[in-house]
Amino acid sequence: MHIGDLRTPAAVVDLVKLGASLAAMRERANRLGVRLRPHVKTHKCVEIARLQHGGQEGPIAVSTLAEARAFASSGFRDITYAVPLAPQRGAEVAELVRAGLRLGVLVDHLDTVAALEACAGVENVRFPVWLKVDCGYHRCGVDPVGAVGLQVAARVGRSGHLELAGILTHAGHAYHCRNREEITAVARQERDVMVSFAGRLRQAGIPVPEVSVGSTPTMSAVDDLSGVTEIRPGNYAFHDVFQATIGSCRVRDCAFTVVATVVGSYPEAGRLVLDAGALALSKDPGPTHVDPACGFGRVCGLDGEELEGLHLASLSQEHGTVTAATATLAARFPIGTRMRIIPNHSCLAAACFDRYHVAEGDRIVGEWRPARGW
Amino acid sequence: MHIGDLRTPAAVVDLVKLGASLAAMRERANRLGVRLRPHVKTHKCVEIARLQHGGQEGPIAVSTLAEARAFASSGFRDITYAVPLAPQRGAEVAELVRAGLRLGVLVDHLDTVAALEACAGVENVRFPVWLKVDCGYHRCGVDPVGAVGLQVAARVGRSGHLELAGILTHAGHAYHCRNREEITAVARQERDVMVSFAGRLRQAGIPVPEVSVGSTPTMSAVDDLSGVTEIRPGNYAFHDVFQATIGSCRVRDCAFTVVATVVGSYPEAGRLVLDAGALALSKDPGPTHVDPACGFGRVCGLDGEELEGLHLASLSQEHGTVTAATATLAARFPIGTRMRIIPNHSCLAAACFDRYHVAEGDRIVGEWRPARGW
Repeated sequence: MHIGDLRTPAAVVDLVKLGASLAAMRERANRLGVRLRPHVKTHKCVEIARLQHGGQEGPIAVSTLAEARAFASSGFRDITYAVPLAPQRGAEVAELVRAGLRLGVLVDHLDTVAALEACAGVENVRFPVWLKVDCGYHRCGVDPVGAVGLQVAARVGRSGHLELAGILTHAGHAYHCRNREEITAVARQERDVMVSFAGRLRQAGIPVPEVSVGSTPTMSAVDDLSGVTEIRPGNYAFHDVFQATIGSCRVRDCAFTVVATVVGSYPEAGRLVLDAGALALSKDPGPTHVDPACGFGRVCGLDGEELEGLHLASLSQEHGTVTAATATLAARFPIGTRMRIIPNHSCLAAACFDRYHVAEGDRIVGEWRPARGW
Repeated sequence: MHIGDLRTPAAVVDLVKLGASLAAMRERANRLGVRLRPHVKTHKCVEIARLQHGGQEGPIAVSTLAEARAFASSGFRDITYAVPLAPQRGAEVAELVRAGLRLGVLVDHLDTVAALEACAGVENVRFPVWLKVDCGYHRCGVDPVGAVGLQVAARVGRSGHLELAGILTHAGHAYHCRNREEITAVARQERDVMVSFAGRLRQAGIPVPEVSVGSTPTMSAVDDLSGVTEIRPGNYAFHDVFQATIGSCRVRDCAFTVVATVVGSYPEAGRLVLDAGALALSKDPGPTHVDPACGFGRVCGLDGEELEGLHLASLSQEHGTVTAATATLAARFPIGTRMRIIPNHSCLAAACFDRYHVAEGDRIVGEWRPARGW
């Protein structure tokens, strides 16, 4: 089957680009002397996670318990659930741990520790626990210079039901950067905050086996990870317009595209309409802090090359509106023309699909089914 | 089961609010003397579509062929596929038509007419065709005062394989309005453009059996539909923050909410984190033209009442960050607290879930499975 034969909208993963990005990150982790624990939230797909580890079911991070269950049932044995756990879902974690999965959970609050301890006691299991640290993103995590972090770590350390696996952070504020220099600065901050916080804990007599950091931008730019033991980039498998715009990758590194068909042609108005809207591309506004007119993705031909002068200006539920620089240009793409869109945010766009078509060049060579739900 | 017992994030449909909105639109259609053809893209759920017709499998509009198949297999016999058809998918339409479904398709270009004619000839079926008209939204449709509309209608009329079912428009620009007065003006424009265009076609000797209009905003505000034969509102089943902000409904009419759990508590920073992010709420920026700081939805208690002083400020993939007006307020919602979020755009948020929990008050009384994919 040819990529142009797919029913649209369709999600396509370019196997060559995927392979190159995965190999580059593996080499980078090796060179920096850290374990690679890819965050699989971007693709949620066991086949890709195996490729990330050169064919093995290596350590991964997940964003939902549904992912944890799906990957555990495919042989992955070391998983970090890298989103703070709702205390009501402790029994589900216990069930996976009891079945032999090393499933690390995040804590950044004494209430969560108390809930986990109680649950582990009732369920008679021992939970590996990561202390989540705020290295500057200000979403989740303990303040690395405050008192709570030490209290939480000490309480975990004293617990018979919990094991402090290590400390963990995510420099999500790297997505606010405008270029590679800024990303490098955030990457150094991410590392320095964590190494310094690990030192504080160790000085207080609390062993810190692991120091885990990572985002795709910071891991694409960082030059030294002394004191860090593992990294958790996720988006690098697919990359996207956001990453390319802030300097984490090149546009041609993006492995995930959505194939769409021109279903409306209005050349006199310089406009085309595609059958890929917000339910196929997500409505992520993209890197507007760098490019306020970035639109909703890059418009490419079926060969994956960007089409100059076409702009994916707006999305409604099932329509993508493309503006063309001239009427002549718009007329070059009649109704029925196939295009490929590189989405602003591949994690959200990939989540719109129940299967990915695997492409080698213009041939479809396979189909992968991602995990869905929570 | 109680609404507070759901695993989160979870989609909940309030049966009383849903029923009230559906009854109000049915009454409105009756009063205005038009057929109600609800657009089911918002919920994609056969149970709700039946409720929209008082228990019958009445006429509907769909946004995907997957919806057409799902609703046809549940007994719906009169369906309009209200998105321009990719010509490559004609055979799928033919298969449904051959099975006895009245499946109307949209055309606004001679190329699409030619493709449909060829397909209908090969497949030996007759397609009901709606001529899509641009009443001012400027997404799809023929210019109502241009030459192409007449050409397309005439060509459909001459075809042995196509039947001109009528003319159809969608006043999507009603979503750019700021209040009910502006919506009323767009609703009148939508009607007047269509009635006038129908007159042009009839003067040219082309019969126009049906004149179909509709969006939730315009159908909530319009006072007279003389010359119109059917309306196709969709979002009114659920409503959402967007509709309430521009004046199509009240916040308390919103029937669709996402139940979430507080998984991060940082009262000193005036911040909470919920386990509902962009994959549970979509990333629709909402009615920013009226309320630039609208955030990503309204934060309510489990009883559905809005919580004053809480603001859903940002979303990442699985995290929703809520800012609180004061540290004291944030501290009132410890880890584990359940909340309900009214999304900015219920069509996109509902599409995040593979099931809806049906609630009467705080009791879960059923579960509905929507159609998915294309």
